[in-house]
Amino acid sequence: MSFYNLHPDRFFDPDSDVRNYAGSIYDTIKNLPIISPHGHVDPKIFAENKPFPNPTELFIIPDHYLFRMLYSQGIPLESLGIPRIDGGLSECDPKKIWKLFSEHYYLFNGTPTGVWLDYEFNQIFDIKEKPDASNAERIYDELNEKINSPEFLPRTLFERFNIEVLATTDTALDTLDQHKVIRTSGWQGRIIPSFRPDTLTDISNPDWVANIKKLGDLTNRTIQNYRDYIDALRERRHYFIHMGAKASDHGVFEPFTKELPLHEAEVIFTRALKQTATPSDVRLFTAHMLMQMAEMSTEDGLVMQIHPGCFRNHNKQLFKQFGFDKGNDIPVATEYTSNLQELLNRYGNNTNLTIILFTLDESVYSRELAPLAGHYPALKLGPAWWFNDSIQGITRYRQHVTETTGFYNTVGFNDDTRAFVSIPARHDVARRVDANYLAGLVARHIISIDEAIVIAEDLTRTLVKRAYKL
Amino acid sequence: MSFYNLHPDRFFDPDSDVRNYAGSIYDTIKNLPIISPHGHVDPKIFAENKPFPNPTELFIIPDHYLFRMLYSQGIPLESLGIPRIDGGLSECDPKKIWKLFSEHYYLFNGTPTGVWLDYEFNQIFDIKEKPDASNAERIYDELNEKINSPEFLPRTLFERFNIEVLATTDTALDTLDQHKVIRTSGWQGRIIPSFRPDTLTDISNPDWVANIKKLGDLTNRTIQNYRDYIDALRERRHYFIHMGAKASDHGVFEPFTKELPLHEAEVIFTRALKQTATPSDVRLFTAHMLMQMAEMSTEDGLVMQIHPGCFRNHNKQLFKQFGFDKGNDIPVATEYTSNLQELLNRYGNNTNLTIILFTLDESVYSRELAPLAGHYPALKLGPAWWFNDSIQGITRYRQHVTETTGFYNTVGFNDDTRAFVSIPARHDVARRVDANYLAGLVARHIISIDEAIVIAEDLTRTLVKRAYKL
Amino acid sequence: MSFYNLHPDRFFDPDSDVRNYAGSIYDTIKNLPIISPHGHVDPKIFAENKPFPNPTELFIIPDHYLFRMLYSQGIPLESLGIPRIDGGLSECDPKKIWKLFSEHYYLFNGTPTGVWLDYEFNQIFDIKEKPDASNAERIYDELNEKINSPEFLPRTLFERFNIEVLATTDTALDTLDQHKVIRTSGWQGRIIPSFRPDTLTDISNPDWVANIKKLGDLTNRTIQNYRDYIDALRERRHYFIHMGAKASDHGVFEPFTKELPLHEAEVIFTRALKQTATPSDVRLFTAHMLMQMAEMSTEDGLVMQIHPGCFRNHNKQLFKQFGFDKGNDIPVATEYTSNLQELLNRYGNNTNLTIILFTLDESVYSRELAPLAGHYPALKLGPAWWFNDSIQGITRYRQHVTETTGFYNTVGFNDDTRAFVSIPARHDVARRVDANYLAGLVARHIISIDEAIVIAEDLTRTLVKRAYKL
Repeated sequence: MSFYNLHPDRFFDPDSDVRNYAGSIYDTIKNLPIISPHGHVDPKIFAENKPFPNPTELFIIPDHYLFRMLYSQGIPLESLGIPRIDGGLSECDPKKIWKLFSEHYYLFNGTPTGVWLDYEFNQIFDIKEKPDASNAERIYDELNEKINSPEFLPRTLFERFNIEVLATTDTALDTLDQHKVIRTSGWQGRIIPSFRPDTLTDISNPDWVANIKKLGDLTNRTIQNYRDYIDALRERRHYFIHMGAKASDHGVFEPFTKELPLHEAEVIFTRALKQTATPSDVRLFTAHMLMQMAEMSTEDGLVMQIHPGCFRNHNKQLFKQFGFDKGNDIPVATEYTSNLQELLNRYGNNTNLTIILFTLDESVYSRELAPLAGHYPALKLGPAWWFNDSIQGITRYRQHVTETTGFYNTVGFNDDTRAFVSIPARHDVARRVDANYLAGLVARHIISIDEAIVIAEDLTRTLVKRAYKL
Repeated sequence: MSFYNLHPDRFFDPDSDVRNYAGSIYDTIKNLPIISPHGHVDPKIFAENKPFPNPTELFIIPDHYLFRMLYSQGIPLESLGIPRIDGGLSECDPKKIWKLFSEHYYLFNGTPTGVWLDYEFNQIFDIKEKPDASNAERIYDELNEKINSPEFLPRTLFERFNIEVLATTDTALDTLDQHKVIRTSGWQGRIIPSFRPDTLTDISNPDWVANIKKLGDLTNRTIQNYRDYIDALRERRHYFIHMGAKASDHGVFEPFTKELPLHEAEVIFTRALKQTATPSDVRLFTAHMLMQMAEMSTEDGLVMQIHPGCFRNHNKQLFKQFGFDKGNDIPVATEYTSNLQELLNRYGNNTNLTIILFTLDESVYSRELAPLAGHYPALKLGPAWWFNDSIQGITRYRQHVTETTGFYNTVGFNDDTRAFVSIPARHDVARRVDANYLAGLVARHIISIDEAIVIAEDLTRTLVKRAYKL
Repeated sequence: MSFYNLHPDRFFDPDSDVRNYAGSIYDTIKNLPIISPHGHVDPKIFAENKPFPNPTELFIIPDHYLFRMLYSQGIPLESLGIPRIDGGLSECDPKKIWKLFSEHYYLFNGTPTGVWLDYEFNQIFDIKEKPDASNAERIYDELNEKINSPEFLPRTLFERFNIEVLATTDTALDTLDQHKVIRTSGWQGRIIPSFRPDTLTDISNPDWVANIKKLGDLTNRTIQNYRDYIDALRERRHYFIHMGAKASDHGVFEPFTKELPLHEAEVIFTRALKQTATPSDVRLFTAHMLMQMAEMSTEDGLVMQIHPGCFRNHNKQLFKQFGFDKGNDIPVATEYTSNLQELLNRYGNNTNLTIILFTLDESVYSRELAPLAGHYPALKLGPAWWFNDSIQGITRYRQHVTETTGFYNTVGFNDDTRAFVSIPARHDVARRVDANYLAGLVARHIISIDEAIVIAEDLTRTLVKRAYKL
């Protein structure tokens, strides 16, 4: 059992010059409101505003960042209460699960999950010990008591976290009912949807035909051809925009882009409806739909986010037992320069459009992404994503992109999380790391402290609001 | 408006041990003459030795490092005075362009362009303010007055910059008339050409047939077959060598090398003359010509530089409007180990030959380039290139190559610039970064300060002179 | 000539906080016994326990890390005494070779070879000068005298180095006679073999048919089909296990894995015996044999090590003259996510199996290896390998993998060396670099000093013993 309090200078370089500059810079941004333009929090928690059920369901069960690490050390997902989709049994006792988690908390030393959890326990729930075997029950009870008090209701935390706006990510088929409930509740918290059409644009999705049927139902039409489909998508985008959406989000295996002639798109679409599409059809249609989505963005103004380069559900056995998002999505090398040429040639010079690129392949930061964003006016770089959203990951991101693309072709921070209470922890890490990066430039006499302070606010606030039109 | 003076310890690590060692090392090299073995300065400016026309034409219009960043932020190239090749109009008022540049000078914070410009304004032109909207006119006038004074004539600056030798890069079809004028002018500045045959070896170049015709004219022959072509190339190399050239320069998409049987080279050459070459022909012929150029280097002694891995003119719309070198050349992943095997097997063991490799793909530093140069005697590593010619870029270069290939398989610094007044700025950055890297090794007790001082001089002077036979 | 003593704080960050923490952490691990679970020391030196012949044969001739650097600077391998396999002559005078080496010792400044040699001369042989032209003869004589004294006999050094266990790497055809001699000698030093079947599983090996014949002879069978072959391999594994082996080792060009149907494996095996296998057969059979080896590991418990991504014998001329392992094995980009999917889907969820992955391609650390090992329970990451086994290389390894996979999916250090006296030098570097990495986390308030000390011991001792079942 070790007692602790988070250090006020944490994550800053130990050198006193850098640390002092970092502290000065951080002080100017630490209390700015949180702008969260991309994430996966379930809007239902704000619609209902009920107490979180218990510490285990708040911290462990929904967080694949966390339980994948335990799994890698031989702990079955069942014993962590992860629900099986194949009918198998999972542990139901939240206290038992909490104990198992606490015993293995040391595994998170040196990881962002550890850093975020430390913040959540210490700064949000005022816990003064790191979880371990000996304190598991005590901390569980303390947390449980707190989450059942009014100060820890979702909307209260939202306000305490000083969140100016929170964007969720919603499938294009979502009716956004939870968003409607929030909007009509009278509560002032600003929660907006984002438009994610992957299940409608990826014709290899096993549910694609059913999804097209649903798309038709939602838009009061029978989708019989490509034109109907495009019209229906456009209508859904408008609905999302009407509900406050500012951005679309596109997850693709590779960022290949290619405009197909209309008749060719028609032919592939028809084959897909008949479930006879080939792998080449899948690739071409995805590439084509990125072009179509960019085209629609030039019309309706949605900011276009592209997240490529992930081999989803790598572990088939686990996927069959537990389903999506269980910690076995593994990055692959990703090519942007050639793949995006058609998109960027067609839309990249458009100063009214914003396309935000993400990557899991750090080797492209300096090689491809920074040169591309340092040229095309429509293109901006999203922040360090997923595995790279970490102290060293964000530092490397700044080190590899800044010299070529500057600060002003980046768009501030995304927390990208489904773990609501981790949001302030994540933004705090990003602000500290950016402050520290800027402090390093000041201490090396590359920029002045005054310039650093301006840039820090731009990274925290101005650039994200501008990029996402917030 | 912010006043400033460059800090004497700029770019050094803030840690006092490293900073002090870095300062001591830097002091021993800071005044060594500049050796610039690879760059793109127009020799005409020294042949004519006329005042630079105005600050805008000196700093902005020729520098794609600079205007690409402004373009990425939505500023049209036309408004920066970049000449259109399609007949469109561009801004003609240099003061207006200067104002636009000054208003956006903050975009260069944290970038090498910003660092170089700071040096140029402060150290060369004695300007004490960073450009911004408020001082644009004043600084313009001050610069304009200076460049019209004799102290700022090109040759005078060349001497003030303490340049021992400056190599230009010249197409193989260049008559080197400007070089002749310089040589016969009586001025002692040493400016030498480099032999760049890309427009003659890349059969996909739209002007290739015309270029072959010109090659024939220049060498007093009608080039009807591959043998004539090779003979003409050899003759051009000899002419360049006669004019002082020490190196050839080869820009290729990929560093693929392959010796073709003579008859096969003949057949492809003939197809190319008839403009019926296939993409496979293009690839093979380029690969073959790298072998041929290496062969000629073993005969005539030209140092062979290979610069691969760039997708040129990625933005077709811009290319059509503005032509080459407009900031939209984007790097791609580059493979060296397999691609260079044939070249290195044939010529890599030759201790009389020098092949210098460059890359825009930092992932190959430790994986491929350092192991290759740490083995083959003919092979040396060129410095961090283009986007990577920066404080952090050069640091990463040393960090990734040194442990495997040492210092002595590298060749010092290239400024590679067409912006003449940036030359001392760029060499100063490289010297500071190398001094700081060595200081880090001293402060970590890996090498002694005496060893560091020897290596620093070798990196600045000895290795570049040896590699380029200067 | 420069006198020196290794600095007690060497390799630590110069910042006083980090340096002090690093020193405190290092002090707790510096005297722990060495566990060397993977390397290439010849067991014969311990079986015979004779004095090393002379300094040149001890330090230079067997060490391709060392002579490749000299070769890259134009020094012929012949002049370094490297034996030619084609009948050509090599220098025989060890003193002449030592002189040449000493004159070029400065080439190793800033390289791990230099760091290791400094340690060996200074800490093991108590030499107080760095080798150079002036002291070559004197140092040679001093070293020569020492290696002929009883304190420098192999077994005595083994004990002085405090080696708890040393694993060698032995071809699957090895009779392990030297290991038998050691075991029956009464000496207590623990030296164990490792099972390396590459020459039997790579059907493109020119000696493969002969090797299969030998495999049959060793296992008292005539291998006529695939089933015999598998049985014989299983038997060899059991023999190695009987002789103390804990791990198998698999060197492959790419980590492609694929289970073939039995009849297909049979067909390819038969073609290979007839020497009519195709390149596709080679690739598929290697992929299939990785699956088979994993299968056998689940049965017999051998830990499976996979070392992919090296283009062996890149320099054919040198290979013809000097044979294998002459410093011209060059890394290539390596893909793990897709290539390993079949292996990991089949065996990766098995908590009783350990698969250890290595790489020469640093771009996969954060992109592929850390996410894979941060999920699959059977998978662990081997340490920074070969060219990356260096101060900065190990630092980068920790920086790129820790945040995603933590410390506990790594397996401590491998020295992987054939240079016996470099073993303590290499382990000392690794311990210092790990201590310094942990100190950086402490100084940044990411973990506590108490946590760092626990992790340091785990990295040095616990994890390697657990992973290799020692």
